Amino acid sequence: MTEEKEKGITAKKEKDMAEWYSQACLKGELAEYSVVKGTMVIRPNGYAVWENIQKHFNRMIKEHGVKNAYFPLFIPERFFKIEAKHAEGFKPEVAWLDKEVTGEGDRLAIRPTSETIMYDSYSRWIRSHRDLPLLINQWCNIVRWETEATKLFLRSREFLWQEGHCVYATNEECEKDTLHYLESYRQLIEDYLAIPLLLGRKTEKEKFPGADTTYSVEAFMPDGKALQAGTSHNLGQNFSKAFGIKFRDKNEKENFAWQNSWGISTRLIGALVMTHGDDKGLVFPPKIAPVQIAIVPIIFEKSKKKVLDACRKIKDELSDYSVMVDERDEYNPGWKFNEWELKGVPLRIEIGPKDIEKKQAVFARRDNGEKEIVKLADIKDKAGKMLESIQKDLFIKAKKFLNESIAEAKTWDEFEKAIKEKKLVKTNFCGETECEDWIKSKLEGVSSRVIPFDSKPSGKCVHCGKKAKVKIYFSRAY
Amino acid sequence: MTEEKEKGITAKKEKDMAEWYSQACLKGELAEYSVVKGTMVIRPNGYAVWENIQKHFNRMIKEHGVKNAYFPLFIPERFFKIEAKHAEGFKPEVAWLDKEVTGEGDRLAIRPTSETIMYDSYSRWIRSHRDLPLLINQWCNIVRWETEATKLFLRSREFLWQEGHCVYATNEECEKDTLHYLESYRQLIEDYLAIPLLLGRKTEKEKFPGADTTYSVEAFMPDGKALQAGTSHNLGQNFSKAFGIKFRDKNEKENFAWQNSWGISTRLIGALVMTHGDDKGLVFPPKIAPVQIAIVPIIFEKSKKKVLDACRKIKDELSDYSVMVDERDEYNPGWKFNEWELKGVPLRIEIGPKDIEKKQAVFARRDNGEKEIVKLADIKDKAGKMLESIQKDLFIKAKKFLNESIAEAKTWDEFEKAIKEKKLVKTNFCGETECEDWIKSKLEGVSSRVIPFDSKPSGKCVHCGKKAKVKIYFSRAY
Repeated sequence: MTEEKEKGITAKKEKDMAEWYSQACLKGELAEYSVVKGTMVIRPNGYAVWENIQKHFNRMIKEHGVKNAYFPLFIPERFFKIEAKHAEGFKPEVAWLDKEVTGEGDRLAIRPTSETIMYDSYSRWIRSHRDLPLLINQWCNIVRWETEATKLFLRSREFLWQEGHCVYATNEECEKDTLHYLESYRQLIEDYLAIPLLLGRKTEKEKFPGADTTYSVEAFMPDGKALQAGTSHNLGQNFSKAFGIKFRDKNEKENFAWQNSWGISTRLIGALVMTHGDDKGLVFPPKIAPVQIAIVPIIFEKSKKKVLDACRKIKDELSDYSVMVDERDEYNPGWKFNEWELKGVPLRIEIGPKDIEKKQAVFARRDNGEKEIVKLADIKDKAGKMLESIQKDLFIKAKKFLNESIAEAKTWDEFEKAIKEKKLVKTNFCGETECEDWIKSKLEGVSSRVIPFDSKPSGKCVHCGKKAKVKIYFSRAY
Repeated sequence: MTEEKEKGITAKKEKDMAEWYSQACLKGELAEYSVVKGTMVIRPNGYAVWENIQKHFNRMIKEHGVKNAYFPLFIPERFFKIEAKHAEGFKPEVAWLDKEVTGEGDRLAIRPTSETIMYDSYSRWIRSHRDLPLLINQWCNIVRWETEATKLFLRSREFLWQEGHCVYATNEECEKDTLHYLESYRQLIEDYLAIPLLLGRKTEKEKFPGADTTYSVEAFMPDGKALQAGTSHNLGQNFSKAFGIKFRDKNEKENFAWQNSWGISTRLIGALVMTHGDDKGLVFPPKIAPVQIAIVPIIFEKSKKKVLDACRKIKDELSDYSVMVDERDEYNPGWKFNEWELKGVPLRIEIGPKDIEKKQAVFARRDNGEKEIVKLADIKDKAGKMLESIQKDLFIKAKKFLNESIAEAKTWDEFEKAIKEKKLVKTNFCGETECEDWIKSKLEGVSSRVIPFDSKPSGKCVHCGKKAKVKIYFSRAY
């Protein structure tokens, strides 16, 4: 691995995003393609991002009363047949166990999502209104047998995710909580990952198979493609009726329960890479970075001990942060600078013998490359402020790009032109699946993304000319 | 679920351990049998124990420099054939994907362990001594297609575990670290789970397929069966030679690397239940308990608000601990006492209007049922001390049982008698597989457990009469 590291990224993000992305993930050691076609290995630098996502999101949901659990990897075929739309939606992507293993019984699928296996348990756990709400989440691996080419984090036959599955006595509670989890996603993704989002609901065509309503947080990548970053589905009573999840209310009357499900996955790491990375490699927002500060000693043989002591002292002072001192003898400072830039560490601190004499260190920001001389006495205060500033600036920059990417289209010509220009098209839309199918077939790769909550339609549908029911975003997408 | 809860456990632990165990897990809501034969659902109360195990063990290994990662669920069939002993060892238990899914290529297994898929990546990651040591761990699900009857946590076709896989430049480093992880397991299991252990190595017969040496921490359950609680394998160069994991040393000479692997699984939760539980249900040691303190208000309509306020105030004071106030209106205090006893909460605090008048509360210990009146002013101090005392006493009690269970056998008659009496037999042994096979065939369910580090053989092998090479433990086992 030593040699490859020295190379750096050879593709330009603006010119060849796909190649740049692949190199950024590989050379930043986030992930690699596995020998098993269609799957990936998440390397420690990538998995640490996922652990940070887990930490923050676990805190949010646990404060809300959600508890984690674990359900089986295998799902009997008959379960898929219970909720018809759900079955249809997942059919093409399901991987099955060999019948030699399972024998004569029902075929077993590897979970492509866990609604059915979880709701079978729920139907036994829930008897009374006292058992509600039931708020459960699981972190697990998911298998969907994709046929298109693998893209690290974005499209692979196995990925990691969380899936929350909650049950309520009333639709009001259910709907309120469905939106609560969407807001939790917004907090996680905007405030920690610094990725700006559009919030809203999906069209009838794009909603989750088996849901009444699907809400979504959508991000927009620098190459002009949207990325669905998280979804929260109000499942209504569709699954509770299919799986018999009933409860006796206070008057001993039996009712079907109301349910939601919500998920985010390791594809968020892909969105993180694309949103903030540059031609030098990864750029992590401080709040989600595995290493927030890399201290690089400028070593000359004579003053080595003094410099390393100073580095360790700075590390101790910065113990509130995730800090590493790069003490390796076999690489020079320049090589180390490139390494930590490639790996996306937000703040680098350089310190050599002359700096020690002057009681200072050099701070280098990963996001804009700016350097600043900082007095040793101010290091803790300054590091905190600089990390905050990097976090904020990354979001502002990405938000500016999102805003500038939105193009309003009043006519079909404007729509086509905006798509050609890689814009996120905001337009009036009738909401009908037939019309949406036509648009999808006309412009390959384009799909409806999200109907914003403040959607105010006016006039006619951009394609069919019928009265518009919603203001909606269309674009190419991951 | 409401009605069943009220029933409590109907089996006695001493009389029918298997039935008691099943009820303790089910009624304590740790887990349930899934509709998919051979698998289980880990419910929130059980998963929270696993999360605590993860939290403590992650801290230990990260302090040691280990990083978490994630490798694919699927393993190509050809990988299993590379290390012959490894292949043979796992063959009977492997579940395969349907060929309709994978097509004409190599068959794909669901991972029964990840040595092969990980070491394939390692062979590309490691080039130079600079890349070593490589210290990686993953938390994941594992599938082994067991044919014997399912036992919650102890035997199921899917379980959760961690598997550490490290690579070193020398055997000395490798061996030292192999023992370091064994010591980490001892700390986790003895100091947090309060389960006393025997440490040592496995015989040639019982070692991991592909390992040079397997070290193990063994627990002994109240029904006279040992339980392998964790293993740490020194793999030597067996896998590095098979997978081509080579590095150039400082003199540019190419060498095969040295490796270890080490794992613990959700079966630890089973050991926890069996070791500490009693006829009222689960008993969790405070350091691993999902809820450490349950506060039960004694409510009368007139003083309700005052009592609930007092409970919440106590909860705030005890914010260093995991505390819940059982405010549910629909259950009386007696029902709640049973509920939290069934679920294993180490300390219960009861408080009613008369207690408030007297500025006191009642503390009830789960482990020995003792009650104590505590002044409100002393609550924080007293709670801390009592939880410490419970943790300590649970370990002492289990340790006493372990010590009393050891029976030295000098002759085969003594060996057989001790096994009949459900003892852990300490005996002199030649160490040969043939002799071990004979013992296993003679006494069904009996196996060699561990050769303690302080093993001092004397005289002859208990069966064959040859010169003893080791002092070893034999017993029935899970």
